[in-house]
Amino acid sequence: MMHLHILGCHSATPKANLHPTAQVLDFNGELCLIDCGEGTQVRLRQQKIKFTRIKHIFISHLHGDHCYGLIGLISTFGLLKREADLHIYGPKGIKKFINIQLELSKTYTSYKIIFHELTSTKSEIILEHNKFTVETIPLDHRIYTNGFFFRGKSRDRKLLINQVEEFGIDVAYYKSIKKGKDIKLDDGTLVKNERLTEPPNPPNSYAYCSDTAFKPSLVEQLNQVEVLYHESTFLEKDEDLCFKTKHSTAKQAAIIAQKAQVKHLILGHFSARYRDENTYKVEAETIFEPTYLAKSGQCFSFE
Amino acid sequence: MMHLHILGCHSATPKANLHPTAQVLDFNGELCLIDCGEGTQVRLRQQKIKFTRIKHIFISHLHGDHCYGLIGLISTFGLLKREADLHIYGPKGIKKFINIQLELSKTYTSYKIIFHELTSTKSEIILEHNKFTVETIPLDHRIYTNGFFFRGKSRDRKLLINQVEEFGIDVAYYKSIKKGKDIKLDDGTLVKNERLTEPPNPPNSYAYCSDTAFKPSLVEQLNQVEVLYHESTFLEKDEDLCFKTKHSTAKQAAIIAQKAQVKHLILGHFSARYRDENTYKVEAETIFEPTYLAKSGQCFSFE
Repeated sequence: MMHLHILGCHSATPKANLHPTAQVLDFNGELCLIDCGEGTQVRLRQQKIKFTRIKHIFISHLHGDHCYGLIGLISTFGLLKREADLHIYGPKGIKKFINIQLELSKTYTSYKIIFHELTSTKSEIILEHNKFTVETIPLDHRIYTNGFFFRGKSRDRKLLINQVEEFGIDVAYYKSIKKGKDIKLDDGTLVKNERLTEPPNPPNSYAYCSDTAFKPSLVEQLNQVEVLYHESTFLEKDEDLCFKTKHSTAKQAAIIAQKAQVKHLILGHFSARYRDENTYKVEAETIFEPTYLAKSGQCFSFE
Repeated sequence: MMHLHILGCHSATPKANLHPTAQVLDFNGELCLIDCGEGTQVRLRQQKIKFTRIKHIFISHLHGDHCYGLIGLISTFGLLKREADLHIYGPKGIKKFINIQLELSKTYTSYKIIFHELTSTKSEIILEHNKFTVETIPLDHRIYTNGFFFRGKSRDRKLLINQVEEFGIDVAYYKSIKKGKDIKLDDGTLVKNERLTEPPNPPNSYAYCSDTAFKPSLVEQLNQVEVLYHESTFLEKDEDLCFKTKHSTAKQAAIIAQKAQVKHLILGHFSARYRDENTYKVEAETIFEPTYLAKSGQCFSFE
């Protein structure tokens, strides 16, 4: 079960109603905040997301439109007398970035902040949770940047309840059957597991890639991911701007999605220069379908 | 001529529609930003205030609800390719506060930022403009804090145009008459200035006092100020919270206004704990009238 709440999905230049990047991923019941542009705490309130449920924050890079809202959120957690630890994953420097502001404003948090500073340019697992793992996706931007890959843990096999009951198997054995064990009945008959179960649903997965230049080598890591969020700051007609700024076009995002055989593609990090955002979708869908456009305030749900 | 645009007027805990402190004072045609809570740049856009017209930013203290929006605004000025110098007046430390963030995010501004770091606990003139001066108002808060006093320059005397024309005085002399000079007519008669002019309007003035505990010694400096903005975080029934947090009640703000014989009082920095903000006004007006409540998006104009 995976819900993606879009808090903001635009690039830096602010307009009155366009918000910089931030999203909350509810991944198998665990809330992760990914990037935290200015105003994120207000957007969290507007979308009625409980602050206390956020235990992990992932910051892709230290450009302002992805992290200037972090200090405000951290301070507010303190005002709300948060007690739970807060884990922050981001580029080396993020600890100094935050701590100097807390220090100069004489703000003391009521809870512990654990910084996980990243430096590797190779993908690495940065969180092992009992429901999922998170690994970095090294991206190609003007500054050290990582995307994040959320991978659900393998699930139990599904019980064929009619079969199990027909054999008169006691409920006490259900857990081990779901783990794949065979069962010996009271009369000594051995029942093979495959008669009692069917294969589990594949683990769910989400990959977040913002900001990055077109990077075909991502395809291998992103192979068959269920949902890919890929930045598309520009349209193909402005591809020259991508080279300069190290961003991608909608078409390039779609090429990655197609080659990696992902299930769903969500585009975001839109430039304010285009009037009609639907053009991003039209451009991407010449290559890959279904493509969705991120929109502040929207929640995507995937089973 | 004085217009005060309220961008935000609430204390720290964010709610979806309550914004932290920031205001733009248009003082004799010059735009000054006073405090800069998170989201200020978006509020500036919403109120259609031209970014390029802001040349001076005054930060009272380094608590987040008064300054977390500054780094975003500075970055956006850069994205908009600002060229004009930007003057920032605030507590010692503000330069480090901003520069470390710019450095870590590898953001280079296209314009010059001139920091004026304040340390004095006595009032001092920090800006001498040809239209006004700005002096600090040392406040009493949990951290080093200054209010700001904007004082218009003395104006010219007002020409009594009928009189001047009756004497047949040439236009070339008007400027010196307005400066207070007497005039010798062609026939040798001396006309005293008071027959040709009336006294100028008194210089306009605005005092911003946020955040502060009740500080009766402010009365002397605030004497007869035209418009006083004074924080009133709490109501009298919660006065005990003022001691702990070094804030003021609406009543205390009104006592300062009354004793200083100000013309208009504006209250702000409201706590989110009260449902009906009008109670602040009711409480203050038992002591001083007229009292206005600041409101995000509102513009107060004073001639």
